[in-house]
Amino acid sequence: MRYKDSSLSIDERVENLLSHMTLKEKVGQLNQKMYGWNAYRRTKDGIKLTEEFKKQVTFGEGMGALYGLFRSDPWSEVTFENGIPPHESAKTANLVQRYVKENTRLGIPVLLSEECPHGHQALDGTMIPTNIGAGSTWNPELMEEAYAHVAAEVRSRGAHLGLISTLDILREPRWGRSEECYSEDPYLASQMTVAAVKGMQGDGSDIHKQDKIIAVLKHFAAQGSGEGGRNAAPANIGERELREIHLPGMKAGVEAGALGCMAAYNEIDGIPCHANEKLLTKILREEWGYEGIVMADGVAIDRLVIQAGDYESAAAMALTAGVDLSLWDTSFTTLKQAVRNGKAKEELIDRAVRRILRLKFSLGLFDQPFIDETVSVNVVGNESFRQVNLQVARESIVLLKNEADILPLSKNTKIAVIGPNANQIYNQLGDYTAVQAKEKGITVLQGIRNIAESEVIYAKGCSIRDESKAGFDEAIVAAEQADVVVLALGGSSMRNFDIQFDTNGAAIISGNSSEMDCGEGVDLADLQLGGVQGELVKAIAATGKPIITVLIQGRPHAVTGIMDDCDAILCGWYPGEEGGQAIGEVLFGDVNPSGKLPVSLPRSSAQLPVYYNHKDQGRELLYIDTTAAPLFPFGYGLSYTQFEYSNLRLVRSDIQLKEIENNQLVEVRIDITNAGKMAGAEVVQLYIKDLEASVTRRIKELKGFKKIWLKAGEQKTITFLIGKEELAIWNDEMKFVVEPGNIKVMVGSDSMNTQEINIQLKEN
Amino acid sequence: MRYKDSSLSIDERVENLLSHMTLKEKVGQLNQKMYGWNAYRRTKDGIKLTEEFKKQVTFGEGMGALYGLFRSDPWSEVTFENGIPPHESAKTANLVQRYVKENTRLGIPVLLSEECPHGHQALDGTMIPTNIGAGSTWNPELMEEAYAHVAAEVRSRGAHLGLISTLDILREPRWGRSEECYSEDPYLASQMTVAAVKGMQGDGSDIHKQDKIIAVLKHFAAQGSGEGGRNAAPANIGERELREIHLPGMKAGVEAGALGCMAAYNEIDGIPCHANEKLLTKILREEWGYEGIVMADGVAIDRLVIQAGDYESAAAMALTAGVDLSLWDTSFTTLKQAVRNGKAKEELIDRAVRRILRLKFSLGLFDQPFIDETVSVNVVGNESFRQVNLQVARESIVLLKNEADILPLSKNTKIAVIGPNANQIYNQLGDYTAVQAKEKGITVLQGIRNIAESEVIYAKGCSIRDESKAGFDEAIVAAEQADVVVLALGGSSMRNFDIQFDTNGAAIISGNSSEMDCGEGVDLADLQLGGVQGELVKAIAATGKPIITVLIQGRPHAVTGIMDDCDAILCGWYPGEEGGQAIGEVLFGDVNPSGKLPVSLPRSSAQLPVYYNHKDQGRELLYIDTTAAPLFPFGYGLSYTQFEYSNLRLVRSDIQLKEIENNQLVEVRIDITNAGKMAGAEVVQLYIKDLEASVTRRIKELKGFKKIWLKAGEQKTITFLIGKEELAIWNDEMKFVVEPGNIKVMVGSDSMNTQEINIQLKEN
Repeated sequence: MRYKDSSLSIDERVENLLSHMTLKEKVGQLNQKMYGWNAYRRTKDGIKLTEEFKKQVTFGEGMGALYGLFRSDPWSEVTFENGIPPHESAKTANLVQRYVKENTRLGIPVLLSEECPHGHQALDGTMIPTNIGAGSTWNPELMEEAYAHVAAEVRSRGAHLGLISTLDILREPRWGRSEECYSEDPYLASQMTVAAVKGMQGDGSDIHKQDKIIAVLKHFAAQGSGEGGRNAAPANIGERELREIHLPGMKAGVEAGALGCMAAYNEIDGIPCHANEKLLTKILREEWGYEGIVMADGVAIDRLVIQAGDYESAAAMALTAGVDLSLWDTSFTTLKQAVRNGKAKEELIDRAVRRILRLKFSLGLFDQPFIDETVSVNVVGNESFRQVNLQVARESIVLLKNEADILPLSKNTKIAVIGPNANQIYNQLGDYTAVQAKEKGITVLQGIRNIAESEVIYAKGCSIRDESKAGFDEAIVAAEQADVVVLALGGSSMRNFDIQFDTNGAAIISGNSSEMDCGEGVDLADLQLGGVQGELVKAIAATGKPIITVLIQGRPHAVTGIMDDCDAILCGWYPGEEGGQAIGEVLFGDVNPSGKLPVSLPRSSAQLPVYYNHKDQGRELLYIDTTAAPLFPFGYGLSYTQFEYSNLRLVRSDIQLKEIENNQLVEVRIDITNAGKMAGAEVVQLYIKDLEASVTRRIKELKGFKKIWLKAGEQKTITFLIGKEELAIWNDEMKFVVEPGNIKVMVGSDSMNTQEINIQLKEN
Repeated sequence: MRYKDSSLSIDERVENLLSHMTLKEKVGQLNQKMYGWNAYRRTKDGIKLTEEFKKQVTFGEGMGALYGLFRSDPWSEVTFENGIPPHESAKTANLVQRYVKENTRLGIPVLLSEECPHGHQALDGTMIPTNIGAGSTWNPELMEEAYAHVAAEVRSRGAHLGLISTLDILREPRWGRSEECYSEDPYLASQMTVAAVKGMQGDGSDIHKQDKIIAVLKHFAAQGSGEGGRNAAPANIGERELREIHLPGMKAGVEAGALGCMAAYNEIDGIPCHANEKLLTKILREEWGYEGIVMADGVAIDRLVIQAGDYESAAAMALTAGVDLSLWDTSFTTLKQAVRNGKAKEELIDRAVRRILRLKFSLGLFDQPFIDETVSVNVVGNESFRQVNLQVARESIVLLKNEADILPLSKNTKIAVIGPNANQIYNQLGDYTAVQAKEKGITVLQGIRNIAESEVIYAKGCSIRDESKAGFDEAIVAAEQADVVVLALGGSSMRNFDIQFDTNGAAIISGNSSEMDCGEGVDLADLQLGGVQGELVKAIAATGKPIITVLIQGRPHAVTGIMDDCDAILCGWYPGEEGGQAIGEVLFGDVNPSGKLPVSLPRSSAQLPVYYNHKDQGRELLYIDTTAAPLFPFGYGLSYTQFEYSNLRLVRSDIQLKEIENNQLVEVRIDITNAGKMAGAEVVQLYIKDLEASVTRRIKELKGFKKIWLKAGEQKTITFLIGKEELAIWNDEMKFVVEPGNIKVMVGSDSMNTQEINIQLKEN
């Protein structure tokens, strides 16, 4: 059969293979029905494939894809006792491929899809900071490097698709998946999305390489605007809000060559994303030219039954909209029957099969379905990745407050490290974390101890959400013995084996029964620190010892109430395995903090939503009992040195529209000086506002940033190039155009601290 | 000139007049430039017109309309000393008309527009409960009667347009204008909108009558979905959300014959309502056939300058979209110049002028511009209106809790009335209230004293928002002397002469400096009771005396924290002048409460938004620290008797779609029995849910209600008729259609307490 001929083009091979396939075989390609961790079991003779797996292959006469072969966590109940360590991974993947190859008529290889929202969620997979921390680095180059390592780990174990949340925009910090968002801002998130695509996939021709995987970008689209911050809740937004805020990430991903995305659970203005033909076909493919696959989120097609009435109708609805590959849905397994009874069209099944086959050919799986079984042990968790991971953690730390330059600390300072996030490695790793090997990862306490040259006392003090103050006395004694207190507070997405999960792995918890306050399914109404953490701060403050608070958290908590009690505040988000080391280095000044907030920090839940790029109302946004302004603004972050901005200028300020249309770029320059005594990095941010427009405009919009390293006393000139992509708006006819008129350009160190200059865009 | 010939049709007269008008005269008709209260001053020789007024007439060679001739409040600074009492009103209005008639070439009469969101905001104008209380009556017939009285008061004084907020849907209780909303629900609000139109305008042929006025329905559209509950903030919603929630009210108003509406300040998905041609022309006029005028909100056209760049462009933008009459805008005064320089089209000016002239002809103003000066003294504040007002107040009171049937109280009970809302009449009246005559209106304390047969002790206890507890001791002593405590708590929209106002009269206040916590410009982040009210409850509860809390408030406060301390809770909203009497009657059982919540009561700001008709997510909406469910659900309200629902049935359950298309109605019946020992009224509520639909559906949607009065032991059968209007949805192509499939019908006493039955809608 010609599709086996590797000298032919991929399109020819796809068409030839498709022509040989039965409807049953086609439907088999569109399903990803079982949990991957149920495909094998560990026996005394090694890893064996299960009957459930074999039955699935038989069902489809082949298997489109298999999700989570390596997934390890309390939901899958995969641990070091029953799971697949790196050195057995490739062998297991090859076992899967071989079984399918040898036991199906056409021998079509299986796509193996894996979670890697912040590293591969597998035994010994390297856990990097979660996305909200990655966003805080404002360093896409560094993240690209990190993602290349993630891809190498995943591919070395034999898998091909890496699921990563790059598309969710953090508009609602109550949402438990806030940690998976890079930013509240579409531009910053887009740059990180591009980093993920390039890091994982390489350039367009790299995807067959044995250290690359396909990035499946989650979630398309607008899940971050779910009403009330409730998971998968409706986004009641309009098309312009959708296009301005939620679509730029995927558009940038497509331009970078993304070959995978996952539809979002939520509906947009009454149409679920999984049933949204305008989104998944008209915009994604016809407007942007996307050629990858659209994967369903877990059991999301079945959720359409609420409105569609039955599985076959739900399947037809999703297929028609543009979903190609299911995830655990019953609906898509009924497609054969749906075609037979006229509910679904076979030509739409062909469309989806083509897309999936094309990926398999692109990955080279038809020619070489097996992976080298000797590679993974040298790739997974290697030193090179450890160093990159540590650097990501360092750059993700945001210094929010540093009263009287209390930081950096002298290494001889006697420190008490107190708090629920001081010494629990899982609390640093975020949701979608595999079961960890003992002694793996560096906690805040360990990181401080690694560097301190004086005694470091430890007391837990309290839990994340428990109401007990039993640990307060010990914590107060510890504080009294020290010169300074490091309070490690915040939240946690740590899952344990007592937590119930729903059918797609989201936690089901209630009341204060758990230590979790974040993660999928863990939405929080009141953003104050949980449990008695606030009271712990007051109790420690009463000792009179200086307090340095380190926030380990997956979402922006509202820390208004403890601001005055803390001499310094660091926000470390979930900093990953190396996070404790990075925090120690920052506390002692071995590293100068350079992270900037990728989200506005709210004062309370009562003032939500709080994001910087709100529409210009011509006046300040106020409540009578509080301002609508955040506690700390988007883009904010201190350094141990000071940066001075001067001489903001345009090379030319009068520009004709046709120059912009012809892809000429406006050059904006500014000089940055390190005016302090320490080397450091600064994120120079460029915002614009269109001053005359057919539609209302936001108060400012990030359209450029550069992270630069300056020695003490050093000065650099930064040049930003602004073009059509940055200047265009979705006008009153929903066209993406540059309109004539003045544009204000603002450059500065955060969204509230900028200098400005105007560009005049003239009619031709 | 033929337009003076009253035997011709209105259209003929309009066209003839228009043909005689200069551009300057036309532009004069489109402007409502000055504050009406600046048009006159009181001198020792009586009321005289000011030079400012005369200059305005000269500017336009005529005057389209004059806003607020009778407005009295701290903003206008109009009081009994300098304002216009009823007996001088008609004379003043006639003075205005006469000046214009005699000093302009064409003598076109002026439209006089007045605020009457809950009665005429003029000296001695009768103040009825604000809309959120009116919505709680679930009695549109009663409200129609009340509005007819309002119209009679306004017209008797010589004015023609009555501005009333009927269109704002309460989706965000943080919003200071919550009090002006009838409901969170579009159906209930629509019924009240129809009541307002019919009450004020009568049927289509009544508008020339001397007791009718044109209802100017505010605000079109979606102001209630302003982001964060901030006044005039963007509504980032999609078209389906707009059509399902925010447009039904105006559509119902148009069908009822509404001849006026006001555009809303907010933008919808990037397009300000004042620049929104789709909204103001395509939907309003072309879809619905509206023939009235669109008035701008105060200075709202000028706000378009933020995006339009200059006044002329802003004016052209609004005129093109469909705004006909400005309110205090500079922009619309530049229209002549805008035509001259090509920014605005004269044919669009003609379009707007036609609409305004048509209203003037319809009102009969060309034939009789003057009003009978003897009528108003017998109309304003007459006994008939007082009785209707009292009945509205009675029916607006919602009984939320009545532990151990503590209510009704015996008239011999020794009562302590405590709280900031016990004896301050302004706190009962809401925003847009005129300066009141001394001794006018019945406070809660007075109402209780009017009925009680034992001693009634009073102590203020504390203020609405002040932090002082100086009054606690007196309050505790008062409580200790009584058998039962009535705590009058809540909020206030009382303006005083110390408050600053912005250019359109919204309050500008900050911090805790004011007693106000509600009203236009007074948005509140934290919905808990303000100041030390919560602590006052705890202090009184410590006395061990039973507590009956009466909430006087313009928005749903979150009273979760005081629930357990209160034996009974009544929500009286802002109950108007007769409110204290009504509350007294309910407390003592002279009136059996029958109000039902027109909004869900939230537990806290942290769980917002909270409304009953959310989309069906197939599971309960949860946060880990609270439920997403309200403290009290939409439609809830207790009675002193009990109502039993039985025998829900359909006359036919199998219906063909074509029957619905042919306007056949589905009949739903249920039997209601008063099973208690007291006569009472019950609001029987019907909800539906479409079970198979092309778009997602809400968990339930109100589509019918009936308020019925039953003696003890009495039973009635209620019949609801459901047709296309109730069954149709905005489908995936944004068409309003009835789709085949099952529809669940739910009938009950509130949104969480219903019985259900299914209708099968079959394809033809």
